[in-house]
Amino acid sequence: MASSFGQLFRITTWGESHGGGVGVVVDGCPPRLKLSEADIQPDLDRRRPGQSKIVTPRKESDTIQILSGISEKGLTLGTPISLWVKNEDQRSEAYNEMKDKFRPSHADFTYFAKYGVRAWQGGGRASARETVGRVAAGAIAKKILREKFGVEVLAYVKQVQKLIGDVNPETVKLKDVESNIVRCPDAKAAEKMIRLIEKIRSDGNTVGGIVEGIARGVPAGWGEPVFDKLEADLAKAMLSLPACKGFESGDGFGGILLTGLEHNDAFRARNKKVFTTTNRSGGIQGGISNGETIFFRTAFKPVATVMHEQDTISEKLENTTLKGRGRHDPCVLPRAVPMVEAMTALVLVDHALRQRAQCS
Amino acid sequence: MASSFGQLFRITTWGESHGGGVGVVVDGCPPRLKLSEADIQPDLDRRRPGQSKIVTPRKESDTIQILSGISEKGLTLGTPISLWVKNEDQRSEAYNEMKDKFRPSHADFTYFAKYGVRAWQGGGRASARETVGRVAAGAIAKKILREKFGVEVLAYVKQVQKLIGDVNPETVKLKDVESNIVRCPDAKAAEKMIRLIEKIRSDGNTVGGIVEGIARGVPAGWGEPVFDKLEADLAKAMLSLPACKGFESGDGFGGILLTGLEHNDAFRARNKKVFTTTNRSGGIQGGISNGETIFFRTAFKPVATVMHEQDTISEKLENTTLKGRGRHDPCVLPRAVPMVEAMTALVLVDHALRQRAQCS
Amino acid sequence: MASSFGQLFRITTWGESHGGGVGVVVDGCPPRLKLSEADIQPDLDRRRPGQSKIVTPRKESDTIQILSGISEKGLTLGTPISLWVKNEDQRSEAYNEMKDKFRPSHADFTYFAKYGVRAWQGGGRASARETVGRVAAGAIAKKILREKFGVEVLAYVKQVQKLIGDVNPETVKLKDVESNIVRCPDAKAAEKMIRLIEKIRSDGNTVGGIVEGIARGVPAGWGEPVFDKLEADLAKAMLSLPACKGFESGDGFGGILLTGLEHNDAFRARNKKVFTTTNRSGGIQGGISNGETIFFRTAFKPVATVMHEQDTISEKLENTTLKGRGRHDPCVLPRAVPMVEAMTALVLVDHALRQRAQCS
Amino acid sequence: MASSFGQLFRITTWGESHGGGVGVVVDGCPPRLKLSEADIQPDLDRRRPGQSKIVTPRKESDTIQILSGISEKGLTLGTPISLWVKNEDQRSEAYNEMKDKFRPSHADFTYFAKYGVRAWQGGGRASARETVGRVAAGAIAKKILREKFGVEVLAYVKQVQKLIGDVNPETVKLKDVESNIVRCPDAKAAEKMIRLIEKIRSDGNTVGGIVEGIARGVPAGWGEPVFDKLEADLAKAMLSLPACKGFESGDGFGGILLTGLEHNDAFRARNKKVFTTTNRSGGIQGGISNGETIFFRTAFKPVATVMHEQDTISEKLENTTLKGRGRHDPCVLPRAVPMVEAMTALVLVDHALRQRAQCS
Repeated sequence: MASSFGQLFRITTWGESHGGGVGVVVDGCPPRLKLSEADIQPDLDRRRPGQSKIVTPRKESDTIQILSGISEKGLTLGTPISLWVKNEDQRSEAYNEMKDKFRPSHADFTYFAKYGVRAWQGGGRASARETVGRVAAGAIAKKILREKFGVEVLAYVKQVQKLIGDVNPETVKLKDVESNIVRCPDAKAAEKMIRLIEKIRSDGNTVGGIVEGIARGVPAGWGEPVFDKLEADLAKAMLSLPACKGFESGDGFGGILLTGLEHNDAFRARNKKVFTTTNRSGGIQGGISNGETIFFRTAFKPVATVMHEQDTISEKLENTTLKGRGRHDPCVLPRAVPMVEAMTALVLVDHALRQRAQCS
Repeated sequence: MASSFGQLFRITTWGESHGGGVGVVVDGCPPRLKLSEADIQPDLDRRRPGQSKIVTPRKESDTIQILSGISEKGLTLGTPISLWVKNEDQRSEAYNEMKDKFRPSHADFTYFAKYGVRAWQGGGRASARETVGRVAAGAIAKKILREKFGVEVLAYVKQVQKLIGDVNPETVKLKDVESNIVRCPDAKAAEKMIRLIEKIRSDGNTVGGIVEGIARGVPAGWGEPVFDKLEADLAKAMLSLPACKGFESGDGFGGILLTGLEHNDAFRARNKKVFTTTNRSGGIQGGISNGETIFFRTAFKPVATVMHEQDTISEKLENTTLKGRGRHDPCVLPRAVPMVEAMTALVLVDHALRQRAQCS
Repeated sequence: MASSFGQLFRITTWGESHGGGVGVVVDGCPPRLKLSEADIQPDLDRRRPGQSKIVTPRKESDTIQILSGISEKGLTLGTPISLWVKNEDQRSEAYNEMKDKFRPSHADFTYFAKYGVRAWQGGGRASARETVGRVAAGAIAKKILREKFGVEVLAYVKQVQKLIGDVNPETVKLKDVESNIVRCPDAKAAEKMIRLIEKIRSDGNTVGGIVEGIARGVPAGWGEPVFDKLEADLAKAMLSLPACKGFESGDGFGGILLTGLEHNDAFRARNKKVFTTTNRSGGIQGGISNGETIFFRTAFKPVATVMHEQDTISEKLENTTLKGRGRHDPCVLPRAVPMVEAMTALVLVDHALRQRAQCS
Repeated sequence: MASSFGQLFRITTWGESHGGGVGVVVDGCPPRLKLSEADIQPDLDRRRPGQSKIVTPRKESDTIQILSGISEKGLTLGTPISLWVKNEDQRSEAYNEMKDKFRPSHADFTYFAKYGVRAWQGGGRASARETVGRVAAGAIAKKILREKFGVEVLAYVKQVQKLIGDVNPETVKLKDVESNIVRCPDAKAAEKMIRLIEKIRSDGNTVGGIVEGIARGVPAGWGEPVFDKLEADLAKAMLSLPACKGFESGDGFGGILLTGLEHNDAFRARNKKVFTTTNRSGGIQGGISNGETIFFRTAFKPVATVMHEQDTISEKLENTTLKGRGRHDPCVLPRAVPMVEAMTALVLVDHALRQRAQCS
């Protein structure tokens, strides 16, 4: 089931970067939720190519169509919601050279090793285009979380290469994230990040960085004790995104420099409401939410396609070289922000329903 | 299902730190594998308490019993293998104070918030004791990988707080890992780590660190393109371990400081055998193995139980304090090594079977 | 998840009888299978309305479109295959009365009780139209079974009300099934069945009957010992079809009149090839195929929509009456034949892959 | 996942008829349910061998032990409940001949064809002993249904060979079922059935029959529209039981003799309470419960082990004969009753939780 995600709120994505389009089937959505394309399109617009000067200029309107699952009054029926985005701006010719050669650090070789066949035009399922379905489904998940559970999910660019933004996870707002094209709420850092990305692009090179994801308002008690810990499911969700190579929750890797005494979050209660005086656990303890803000960081490596000649091999396993061509992102981070939000929301809504099933 | 892991080679663990014991049911194991307790006990011995002066002195022999799934000639039948370890050294009285109070940064509070009931004696399912089942099942997975697929899985302590070991993932051997009680193959660093842990224990404090996991000999083609990427499943597997708060694959978080040109792994071929000249991808590209050594790092936070008075709350949500008592690990890392190996092997054997199902 | 079926060869159907169409995502299909619309359309044509005078005259061309998962050379990529059929002949006005009333023995009431909302135009997901996705996916499954495993799947009408056809499961061929519009290979019985259905239709009434399903060439060893017995999965597959109310494998309900001594199938071997002298087990013993022809029977109740006034209730729970209108099948059996084949093939291909995963 | 059943209330059974015992892990059980061995043992006593003169005299006390998942106050913790029954009366020597020969219409041959190895002493997983875990888990499911949802699950013997009992599914009570050793609530028919079974046993032969299962008090709205229809899941559950070869819901196979006009269940309402004037649908329409009593019938074939010489083959595929030996049931039906109840309860509790998750 490589292409499905979630136990109760389950999505199945399909489609390659070239072909009839990309889409997703959302199964298990609660009934009677008001839902239309207008709830989904804004997040797709945050994800789509061509949105600014620091992302790929590929032209895709990424217009969402709902094919099923909605009543004539605009309510979810409780049955599968099928969402479809047509592919528009396909230029297979830009990929002609990839037909016989594997791009370094791309999935061309591994797909071929696995399947013995591959969609060489555009990267097939390994293309970031696959995330259209995730972001669309995530928009529905976010709406449910917001309206039914009072939970807000948000992500933003925390770091581009060495440039780090200063952001408070407890107070940052969507409008802060959307206030600039790199989606770093720290305006000063954002400016520098944009300049760096422009410079890197003009060099035909690429950079990576960190997206921070947060969820506010999650009640204590979501998550599972053992394999489906909230952090475990979030880690899987993030590492399943293209180019993501790392995940840390709360203090994460930094936390290992502290002793237990320094690292522990003290519980306090005021008017029977529980809180912790610090939040090094990132809102999750023993795999289950504790009521504090959930936050985590995800590392995205620099995009593999660079406009330079690089060593590689052909399908016939002969040594050769390849130079990147076509329209690519110099940095995935601005577009990764809605992807991180979507995957976070999908994990949380699934656990919300699981919690309701077993413990309500 | 919170307590099951894997799609085809599926394990289900059960049991609390106090009660009739802990165990695991392994379903989907290939038939006709020679298997006895002797294949499993060694890894349990590496995991068990009381094995050295730097781990908890709790006395558990952790003797494994196979209850089903083996033929009278000692071969796996292809049907579920039920494994059971009795609990022996239970001292609930050490937990009496926890009956009414939540330990800071433990799962006591979140379990109670979730279920409205909890096993206060020893941490219940949040106890590291739950990993007995994982390590036992992992020993079977490792045996299959070794004998049927030529794959070797290994883990070792890479870092304790600020002390970093120097280890080569391409050449390190099990005997290097087992050459000292902290399980860091760098003998010099190991010595310092041991001293640090002893010092920390005598202070009634705790430390965390990094375990590195590797898999050598994985053929190109294991893993799935989208949600079940090999890294995604490994990330979930690791973050599902108690106290694990971070995962990174290949260059991980460090990789974001490089540009794409610097980060890419060039493909080369020699005698029709493919390799990469560097391995910043950690053996996985687009979620699928590329034939290079798989390696990743996992961050374990300092153990939450410290022998100092700390602020916390009672079940009645009143502010109070609590001082750790009983027999605890000053550092989980030496015992986390077999857990990381087990979870790695479980992920890999599952993907090996999935690959065989779809693509053979 | 309500809308997914299969563990390794997994399909997810979506769509209502009214709306953007119906479709299916097929995940887990082996790569490098030659596949085009031409492999799928014939089975859809056997399923579609308007194909003969004894089925509903609703006009739907049911033209299949493959949206993803196929290489430019026409081979499956191993990634999800998305299949879509547009809805064409929708006449919601025929359903106006159903907007407020529940049709007797239909799913109108139960959907409303479950979801609090329903797609009243055409029955929503309860419409036989939902089976388009199953039949399309089943055509792929049948092709894999035929080409990769030498297995032939077939179904035919065995009984319409009291009229029983005489058919030999060991020798019947597709062309026999397709030799008449009721799809009963016994030509004489078929004639009577057609006359009965025409008579029943002119009375504004409906009839049910039995479809027999068979699979020839299944090797010994497919299936699972306990919950996923081959018969259990086939039973679920059949009972999941609209209007299906019964399933029996081999001698089924009739077998209970025999004693064990009479019922047992004796094993014999000739040139090291095993066979049974009778096949009362229907090719399955202990849930696992034994190499004989698999056969089973499925009961389809008479269609609920009759052109007579019937007692029922309104959405406001007031007593009222309702008379069927619109274009409906007087008997689902001729169109159920490809559905039974599809579900059989989906079960078998899934078990073929599972067997390969665990035991090859 | 051959050995797991259920999506949210999930059980995993393990164990062979010979070996360390049989057991089950129950995952997903709601927390804070009062539960002890006393809730489970009675159903195991109804299932166990040696309970009467018409079942196998094998002596097993089948004493259940709860190994995990219960708090010190006797409440479910929400974590896995591990249940274990030791094997006691094993006489492998009775099976010595089966070591080299396959019993006709047993699973010996198919297991060997599948796995290339088998547990010849007692039938391994194909033994009715495997159902111990199901019945134990089912007792928990029945308790939840009764206490939390007001649903009563019951089964009884409806037919033994040609002898049919007259039972009213709307009014029959557990004490009626338990009033005689064959578990047919029609006392007169029961007497004849018992005499028939005694006669058949003395002939060294066996008989089959029908168990009817019912569920009263299921609210309208449980079940799923497409693949996981309530009937589909019940059919799978029943056909997964040893020796079960048929399932029919409501009027089932008999219903096909009626026309639609005769078969439809008219809806009526009284004081805003909905009911149907007949119940040919068996309480399920479109896969979802309609509030009426759910009822269905299951066909159990005659036990394959007869005390007569029969043709069969050896493991070396040579023709030979075999005569049944040992202690076997002349008729599984009395012991199948608690199995049918258990599987019914497992299906229903799973759908109850699923309904709560998605639609509450």
